[in-house]
Amino acid sequence: MIELSELRLLREISSPEDVRKLSDEELYELADEIRRYLVSVVSETGGHLASNLGVVEMTIALHRVFDFDKDRLVFDVGHQSYVHKLLTGRAERFPSLRQRGGLSGFPKTDESEYDAFNTGHSSTSISAAIGIMRADALRGVKRSVVALIGDGALTGGMAYEALDDVGQQKLPLIVVLNDNEMSISGNVGGLSRHLARMRTARGYRSFKKGFSRVLRKIPLVGKWMNDKVEHLKNRVKYFILPNVLFEELGFTYLGPIDGHDIETLTEVFKHAREMDVPVVIHAVTKKGRGYEPAERNPEKFHGIGKFNVETGETKPTFGNSNAFSEELCALAEEDPEIVAITAAMASGTGLDMFKNRFPDRFFDVGIAEQHAVTMAAGLAIAGAKPVFCVYSSFLQRAFDQVLHDVCLQDLKVIFGVDRAGLVGADGETHHGIYDISYMLSLPNMKILSPSSVQELRALLRWAVKEGDSPCCIRYNRGVLPDRPLPDGEDILSWECIKPFRSVCVVATGRTVRTAIEVCSELNVGLYNARSIRPMDENVLEKISHAHYVITVEDGVVNDGFGTQVAAYMSAKGCGTKVVCVGVPNRVVEQGSVPEQDEECGLSVEKLKETIKSCMGGIYA
Amino acid sequence: MIELSELRLLREISSPEDVRKLSDEELYELADEIRRYLVSVVSETGGHLASNLGVVEMTIALHRVFDFDKDRLVFDVGHQSYVHKLLTGRAERFPSLRQRGGLSGFPKTDESEYDAFNTGHSSTSISAAIGIMRADALRGVKRSVVALIGDGALTGGMAYEALDDVGQQKLPLIVVLNDNEMSISGNVGGLSRHLARMRTARGYRSFKKGFSRVLRKIPLVGKWMNDKVEHLKNRVKYFILPNVLFEELGFTYLGPIDGHDIETLTEVFKHAREMDVPVVIHAVTKKGRGYEPAERNPEKFHGIGKFNVETGETKPTFGNSNAFSEELCALAEEDPEIVAITAAMASGTGLDMFKNRFPDRFFDVGIAEQHAVTMAAGLAIAGAKPVFCVYSSFLQRAFDQVLHDVCLQDLKVIFGVDRAGLVGADGETHHGIYDISYMLSLPNMKILSPSSVQELRALLRWAVKEGDSPCCIRYNRGVLPDRPLPDGEDILSWECIKPFRSVCVVATGRTVRTAIEVCSELNVGLYNARSIRPMDENVLEKISHAHYVITVEDGVVNDGFGTQVAAYMSAKGCGTKVVCVGVPNRVVEQGSVPEQDEECGLSVEKLKETIKSCMGGIYA
Repeated sequence: MIELSELRLLREISSPEDVRKLSDEELYELADEIRRYLVSVVSETGGHLASNLGVVEMTIALHRVFDFDKDRLVFDVGHQSYVHKLLTGRAERFPSLRQRGGLSGFPKTDESEYDAFNTGHSSTSISAAIGIMRADALRGVKRSVVALIGDGALTGGMAYEALDDVGQQKLPLIVVLNDNEMSISGNVGGLSRHLARMRTARGYRSFKKGFSRVLRKIPLVGKWMNDKVEHLKNRVKYFILPNVLFEELGFTYLGPIDGHDIETLTEVFKHAREMDVPVVIHAVTKKGRGYEPAERNPEKFHGIGKFNVETGETKPTFGNSNAFSEELCALAEEDPEIVAITAAMASGTGLDMFKNRFPDRFFDVGIAEQHAVTMAAGLAIAGAKPVFCVYSSFLQRAFDQVLHDVCLQDLKVIFGVDRAGLVGADGETHHGIYDISYMLSLPNMKILSPSSVQELRALLRWAVKEGDSPCCIRYNRGVLPDRPLPDGEDILSWECIKPFRSVCVVATGRTVRTAIEVCSELNVGLYNARSIRPMDENVLEKISHAHYVITVEDGVVNDGFGTQVAAYMSAKGCGTKVVCVGVPNRVVEQGSVPEQDEECGLSVEKLKETIKSCMGGIYA
Repeated sequence: MIELSELRLLREISSPEDVRKLSDEELYELADEIRRYLVSVVSETGGHLASNLGVVEMTIALHRVFDFDKDRLVFDVGHQSYVHKLLTGRAERFPSLRQRGGLSGFPKTDESEYDAFNTGHSSTSISAAIGIMRADALRGVKRSVVALIGDGALTGGMAYEALDDVGQQKLPLIVVLNDNEMSISGNVGGLSRHLARMRTARGYRSFKKGFSRVLRKIPLVGKWMNDKVEHLKNRVKYFILPNVLFEELGFTYLGPIDGHDIETLTEVFKHAREMDVPVVIHAVTKKGRGYEPAERNPEKFHGIGKFNVETGETKPTFGNSNAFSEELCALAEEDPEIVAITAAMASGTGLDMFKNRFPDRFFDVGIAEQHAVTMAAGLAIAGAKPVFCVYSSFLQRAFDQVLHDVCLQDLKVIFGVDRAGLVGADGETHHGIYDISYMLSLPNMKILSPSSVQELRALLRWAVKEGDSPCCIRYNRGVLPDRPLPDGEDILSWECIKPFRSVCVVATGRTVRTAIEVCSELNVGLYNARSIRPMDENVLEKISHAHYVITVEDGVVNDGFGTQVAAYMSAKGCGTKVVCVGVPNRVVEQGSVPEQDEECGLSVEKLKETIKSCMGGIYA
């Protein structure tokens, strides 16, 4: 690993002021050091690499021009904030990235005054920036507000809602569009085509060559500059296709510019800062820039675990996502009506396998979960069998569509709810701990929760072949254990792993493995709730005779599976004490999943303590 | 009331085939009959009037050209589907509109084979249409798919997600943009400005005069026609500002055309049907057309109760929304940092009062709840005190933003959750019965639930002055009772209305009034849960000694307030039976609120039965 002390310039940067002292040449050297440090650290910690390699020069130029302890920089998604962290006094702590107690992989207002707004999900930056500007106007605060957004995040509808508002109100927001020619999974949609056309327009190359020269000739003060900016704008328009889309929305458009040219970026940012109108700066960057394996395979290096710096190699894994996709392919082979949908996560959800085998039955809609769900409803109503694979935390974005378009119409749409439960290093914005709760209230929705790879496959098979209503199947990142299915059991019933005792444990999903380990040596009953909704009334009736029922789930504990079991017991008035184990209803910060399990009482040790104290309680 | 039998043409229309038999002149007469019938019926039933008056000719022309028992017509929002219902065999049943067992105010697939997709919320139509088209392609079904969307619904981000997908994939969808120059509350945003520019462009008037003549000269068959369509398109582009926004997104744009000119509409629809590319037809209409009071005040006649046909007068009401807004204005007078936000519902949420008094501190973002919430988070982080008033069912659209941007950052954003609970005639898509459930899992969120106008005001005052975290205050449509606040009580504590007995009732919000009426003559305890989260642990401890606790709420019963009380009792293992009364977890159809209360066990009679049976149970 490269030590910070080896990096001549970066080690001296304790705040952006130090960046501003460097010459143009030194800034490129700094960029080079940052890249080496990024690759070295992320190869150990895992994280978002390619996107950060793409914004090194852009971030340097932003800090050169703006003063972000006063001015505000709002990141979109925020996984591209590493360079910003390195330049704002966090270089030394950087090797703690994404670890418990360490630096977050996303902006965090409580980590630095340079971080303006916490992010993690896509397409929020412009809205947040507008809010900040409106508060500033109210309070008489004068400062610049910059939103840094990728082309992928622009496929999310809420970004458009916000652009629409900015343009109408003529709020002098500076939007920096980081166009890296792909979102997470390669870009889709009309906008992407539009951007691509602009990039490839005949004028672009000559413009690239001429632009920084043109800019450097422009003095930086006074009315004359503004005239020049106007002139420049016209020149841009002359060289390039007019960027009608943004201009129609009310923005002044500057670009496209080379997002790796620090001088050009600096000049354009300076001009934008002086203009009192909404501005879009369209900067073209290369994802993975400067690290060959990431340049070659930016999707792989978008979010990555540990890797070999020399070769770019990672350990291949076959996780739940892959098992789900494999089973779906097998089903799709038999049934031509099955289609698969992703929202820019073909690789993350394992659906690239489906995409390769059934390209005509695979739909990647971009970062557009709302559209994905309602489109799925349309597919279902017209006779197809849609399966939408999506991370639990991103499906939150489409809650209303799940309710309004799928559940109220009782349409057979299957949700592969991936990354369910605690997610580890990505931290609180990415936990998939809310889905049980938000699905429970929806009419007609089934919630299935496999505890093994075999159950995962069997539940998907059941949902496709026998289910006739909306259904979600939730599974964690990583891999569920191999555990053969008992013969002949109804797959929606709760499996009895250890028979009834006066203390009974009911676990669901990933937590069943832990519960088996804990209960193997205890005199307790143990059940595996493969279906959270419907619940297995036979088992519930049986365990209502226990003194203690301990529920275990990988989701918010105050409104989830356990609460449903508790409500059953209270309705009966049986006096059974129900102890719910799960994720507490507060922010659970980043760390490894085992660390988070420990914090939430879901580790073997902690769960054992809880169960033993219940066993003690019977005789207390 | 006008009887159908008085309407010479409409009474003979039993399916769209009958429409197709009429001459151009007769179609205008039919339009006139439809308008008279709409005004007459809606003056009795209440409903969405202005939007339907605006689409009479457009709907006639659509049914003239397409065959919607095979072709698919997907409405956006769907409140403009009345004319469609009148033309598809439902004219006779029309006076049952929005009543229990009667016609829905929205498209309903189980009401007619002419209804393609159920709607109610905004901006879903294009997504649903894409889904249908992709299923059709898969299954080899050949038919036209039309999405009818208003300019207001285009401010919702998911419509853009879908447009982006259509344009990229070149799906031959026909989007009919019903541009009535305003969404519900007057339009906002850059798109609206863009449309307005097109409408007022110098060429529009002359185009309007010339367009149908031009079209009528075009034969309807063969390649020649397509050439002509291209020619026509060019001519349109020549006459009008080029509609770059849609064209950049990959659509062929036709328009703007006069949305009340049946011949022009017919011709343009015919052409669009023959083109094998995505088409946007931009039709300009007048909301409220043909009924002078509605033309004058389309916002009032958007969704309206009974009114006097002669004068357009309605009974003025002062509801919870108005009380909330009035109190907010009083608070804003004292505190310059308070701002109010609406998503196109200034009138419905009562915020027009705030808008008039504090125009600089009022933000209407259009039908863009996601943007509204994240913008509120931005406002809060920069020191303002945002209050977002929004219907419960529409706030569903921003669930992720409430979680990700507000709650995880623990920002002080206040949500005025209007239309909470059962909503009556608008039916299942508009019930505000899910908010308690989806708010419960969110960290840092408080859920307040006033039972009287005094509590509504006091809770808002508390949230603004003393609250320091996200907070929602939920209240129903209509008006809560006048009931003076007891002196000196903590406003978040649960009020004891009748002291502890072995049967205790805990009601919240609107249901407290019913519970008081029921309990006045019964020997039971009665508590008013003004705060659902946090719960009052003192009262919970007390009632854990009861035999029965009956919870009463205006929300889904299987995952809400009652479930939380039940979980408390089960955690204690006290053996108290908890009976939860609330809205069952299935589709509760339209009707009056008292009818829905009766169905859900929330009426005085039903609640009395439930409580009495518990009282009997003690000795059973």
